[in-house]
Amino acid sequence: MDLTQIQNPSFLKDMSISELEALSEDIRKFLIEELSQTGGHIAPNLGVVELTIALHKVFNSPRDKFLWDVGHQSYVHKILTGRAKEFGTLRQYKGLCGFPKRCESEHDVWETGHSSTSLSAAMGMALARDLKKTKEYIVPIIGDGALTGGMALEALNHIGHEQTDMTVILNDNEMSIAPNVGALHNVLGRLRTAGKYQWVKDELEYLLKKIPAVGGKVAATAEKVKDSLKYLLVSGVFFEELGFTYLGPVDGHDYESLFENLQYAKKTKGPVIVHVITKKGKGYKPAESDVVGTWHGTGPYKIESGDFVKPKEAAPAWSSVISEAVRKLAKNDPRIVAVTPAMPVGSKLEKFAKEFPNRMFDVGIAEQHAVTMAAGLATQDMKPFLAIYSTFLQRAYDQVVHDVCRQNLNVFFGIDRAGLVGADGETHQGIFDIAFLRHLPNIVLMMPKDENEGQHMVYTAINYKNGPIALRYPRGNGLGVPMDEEFKEIPIGTWETLREGSQAAILTFGTTIPMAMEAAECLEKKGISVKVVNARFIKPMDEAYLHELLGKNMPILTIEEACLMGGFGSGVLEFASEQGYHNALIECMGIPDHFIEHGSVPKLLEEIGLTTDAVVERICTMIPLKQKRA
Amino acid sequence: MDLTQIQNPSFLKDMSISELEALSEDIRKFLIEELSQTGGHIAPNLGVVELTIALHKVFNSPRDKFLWDVGHQSYVHKILTGRAKEFGTLRQYKGLCGFPKRCESEHDVWETGHSSTSLSAAMGMALARDLKKTKEYIVPIIGDGALTGGMALEALNHIGHEQTDMTVILNDNEMSIAPNVGALHNVLGRLRTAGKYQWVKDELEYLLKKIPAVGGKVAATAEKVKDSLKYLLVSGVFFEELGFTYLGPVDGHDYESLFENLQYAKKTKGPVIVHVITKKGKGYKPAESDVVGTWHGTGPYKIESGDFVKPKEAAPAWSSVISEAVRKLAKNDPRIVAVTPAMPVGSKLEKFAKEFPNRMFDVGIAEQHAVTMAAGLATQDMKPFLAIYSTFLQRAYDQVVHDVCRQNLNVFFGIDRAGLVGADGETHQGIFDIAFLRHLPNIVLMMPKDENEGQHMVYTAINYKNGPIALRYPRGNGLGVPMDEEFKEIPIGTWETLREGSQAAILTFGTTIPMAMEAAECLEKKGISVKVVNARFIKPMDEAYLHELLGKNMPILTIEEACLMGGFGSGVLEFASEQGYHNALIECMGIPDHFIEHGSVPKLLEEIGLTTDAVVERICTMIPLKQKRA
Repeated sequence: MDLTQIQNPSFLKDMSISELEALSEDIRKFLIEELSQTGGHIAPNLGVVELTIALHKVFNSPRDKFLWDVGHQSYVHKILTGRAKEFGTLRQYKGLCGFPKRCESEHDVWETGHSSTSLSAAMGMALARDLKKTKEYIVPIIGDGALTGGMALEALNHIGHEQTDMTVILNDNEMSIAPNVGALHNVLGRLRTAGKYQWVKDELEYLLKKIPAVGGKVAATAEKVKDSLKYLLVSGVFFEELGFTYLGPVDGHDYESLFENLQYAKKTKGPVIVHVITKKGKGYKPAESDVVGTWHGTGPYKIESGDFVKPKEAAPAWSSVISEAVRKLAKNDPRIVAVTPAMPVGSKLEKFAKEFPNRMFDVGIAEQHAVTMAAGLATQDMKPFLAIYSTFLQRAYDQVVHDVCRQNLNVFFGIDRAGLVGADGETHQGIFDIAFLRHLPNIVLMMPKDENEGQHMVYTAINYKNGPIALRYPRGNGLGVPMDEEFKEIPIGTWETLREGSQAAILTFGTTIPMAMEAAECLEKKGISVKVVNARFIKPMDEAYLHELLGKNMPILTIEEACLMGGFGSGVLEFASEQGYHNALIECMGIPDHFIEHGSVPKLLEEIGLTTDAVVERICTMIPLKQKRA
Repeated sequence: MDLTQIQNPSFLKDMSISELEALSEDIRKFLIEELSQTGGHIAPNLGVVELTIALHKVFNSPRDKFLWDVGHQSYVHKILTGRAKEFGTLRQYKGLCGFPKRCESEHDVWETGHSSTSLSAAMGMALARDLKKTKEYIVPIIGDGALTGGMALEALNHIGHEQTDMTVILNDNEMSIAPNVGALHNVLGRLRTAGKYQWVKDELEYLLKKIPAVGGKVAATAEKVKDSLKYLLVSGVFFEELGFTYLGPVDGHDYESLFENLQYAKKTKGPVIVHVITKKGKGYKPAESDVVGTWHGTGPYKIESGDFVKPKEAAPAWSSVISEAVRKLAKNDPRIVAVTPAMPVGSKLEKFAKEFPNRMFDVGIAEQHAVTMAAGLATQDMKPFLAIYSTFLQRAYDQVVHDVCRQNLNVFFGIDRAGLVGADGETHQGIFDIAFLRHLPNIVLMMPKDENEGQHMVYTAINYKNGPIALRYPRGNGLGVPMDEEFKEIPIGTWETLREGSQAAILTFGTTIPMAMEAAECLEKKGISVKVVNARFIKPMDEAYLHELLGKNMPILTIEEACLMGGFGSGVLEFASEQGYHNALIECMGIPDHFIEHGSVPKLLEEIGLTTDAVVERICTMIPLKQKRA
């Protein structure tokens, strides 16, 4: 059928299973074709085609509420709720969002992007429903990976205790983003194979049959025992212990099983967990046979071969540069260990893991645990390198404050994906880390101008002995600069002059340096001489350098690809105020006070006014201001 | 014995059980007497006297490592490690800390204050031990309340999976800070009473005995089944499922049981959980009979009667004022619900809970879940009031960013204990919330000058419809001002002139207002006229007011009882820079860039230079500066 004609999911109600199967094929074909052009989260969505259709057939969205945990598996839901025609714009500027988005559709009732939030939100919705005495179903759909996140476990605990009516769909594909980690995964594995429980149950039934029928009493007791054991052994003991009714495991690609279990769940009081087994990438060979997670989220690809259509990459990825430098240093330094919360591939730690398998710890989606475990390692004179995306470090803010900075422990944070990330949009933009880290005592915060400086900063961080140190680096590739053979240490808190100039100074770091350099060149052509400074240490700042600039009364423009409030620029303003430079002319460019949606990074920078032209213009308005005042 | 003579715990090794029992009595007597003078966490410490002694007898600290989760139960440990003589200074300025503190003793290997961190830290220490191939025991001691915190569950999951050698002590006193919440608590309850499991086990043994012995095969099978069932049913199924060996329940006041189980735990490979049942307040009647948590942490008290020696309180507690205003408004507004993460008593929500039992949700120690559940409630047009201490909101930073602010939901945060808290010290000072919230889009952040304005701010927040709004209020009591009968709305983003003045303006809010007013009076006597502004909206600021001040070129001093970096003062600096007031003379007073230890609030304010005298001095230096420039 023509999927772009779908307005809402009501058409599913009259469809037979064979029609639904045909629809599933159409959706798979559509996804494989569309995403081959735009890229996107192909494997997770191919895995939930039947599940999503079944949910929309059995429940009534938007009255009933689907909460897609993490949310990158909501494409089928988007198709069934009238958005197929917009897939050509997926994850592009002003186009369809890659995650649920409340402004897109009344069927998107909860926005996600980060993991493990759906159960808490569902609990809020269910409590509201019960107070209002309405009857809608609340249906969070959560993966086995997301279930290892602390807040999901907090929510399970609370929901089980309150016995709130809720239908939790556990979408178990045996793989979160990387192969899954943790004891909970083992529990799911045991449920999946039904190994031990099935065995115990069978043995017990055999034994019970052998009990001589000596009157009613024993038979009744036997029956009771059998019920209790069934309850304890075969029906998801872990979840039952927490107060849930466990249904499953259900084949997530079989409509009959799905309907049967979902209908049963609807009739069951209290919290129910429907354990659905799905296959990531189902129906597309290259994605189906992926074991490391390459097909989790991709750029465009060739359908036939499954080859990725990659833009030519002259330079190595930032994540590779940093993780490789750590790996090289780890050869001669047994203190170095690596920690990742479920991102060994994204953080390019595969080579480290191969070379030092017992010094690499993937803790699963568990950012809080990752940070504090790193702190624990540091107390024992180890040197933990914690590779974590800027936006996910938000989830461990208190662990950074309370466990790392307060105890002043030598944890080395590799803050990956710092700055704008593009297609993943507002949940993934790494624009807050400076503002949420800069005010913490004891931390060093730095960002390199290029990958060569990046490797030296790794060396600097490894050799740093006075507390926590964080190295920010952006998504994407380096600049392709030559790499020094030898590591060298960069003195903490020192900046570097990249270009001399006499009429104004631009202080910036990382990705915005090329923009500043280009602007300075343009300005030179206009006869304006501008200094450009690599302000590579965001904290501590180069105070001697600042004293020199401020002492000369040089107009200063700060530029950062990060939120303005509380950012690096604010740090410069604070310094000038504190040191009594009350005549200083300081202006700040950065990300204004709103969330930044998805789109290509250049497009987004243009939208928020972080461009070479804007820098040129700003300097031009600042210099006459200064002359007027002088 | 004279506890102040203890140097280290080695003297325990040769003591008999009856000697240890006498020691326990001495310690209890000591604690009851000392804390009656200083206040402190009396009930938790009385509960762990035998447990702590047993741990120090069985293990060898500091080689073996004790990690006291939350840490307020570490007094007995402090006594046994040579610190009894310092108890007179407990929680006082430069005195003994109320939590483990690494600089105090080599026996304090991990600092706590916030809950649920010990297992992650222990995992880090255990991984370090295994890499170094040393043999020490890692022994985190965690309460049943702390176990509901997401990061503790993340850690359990990881430890169980890795099968790391570790001895986890689960100190189960059936009460965290308030009566415990959550399904996990139910699990513990079932283990404790051994109800269902014991029953099933008994029934099964009865049945198994009845099986006719028809040859070796069946008997062997029966034995196997019995083993499996024992494994599944009687030995802590929940923890066993996660990969732990479960020992217990153990009577935490019985030395023989404690020694037996701890010795067995030492010999067991892989992670072990020793489930110890203790009685909070054990040995002191008033504390023992407490059911709501009044004796969790107290001020000084009279030993005989158990009456608290309270300083005369003219004014109501801030927490009461705010929670009471919420309760009054809830009478006519069914949208209002209250959420607390385990702090119904601290947040003074008891009356709300009594009046609206089905609109009050205590989720246990689970801050992340609390915030996102509130967000879920808000999506359904409820008006959740989340009462949370400033320092604990740190644990849900990403939930505030990703779930509340990004979706712009109407969650009302009551940020209690904002500012310095005094005796609880650095883990509890609420000095970062402005810096970690101000940069978030969509949030409104305010603080009242007195409790009357506080109640109006509650009304304002309840009526606010445009997104999240946060009301900060300090620890302790209000000013004793008269309370208006009628609530009134305060226009968002408006400041208020408290005192007119022409030569400088002080912008401040909340607890520092009296200091500013006093300084202005002193300055008037010196002939200097200073305006004092109640900058009650930290975000959005009163831009019209700022334009007026800056337009007049008035010197501005900002004062805040919060960290300077990224704080309110930075906001004023940012505004002046952005709006082109480059001649503005703005100086900022606040908390410098380090953690603030325990001590009385006035003492701490003096230490960091936030005093009336300092304000007077600062204004005096600012005005000549301005004159020189004019």
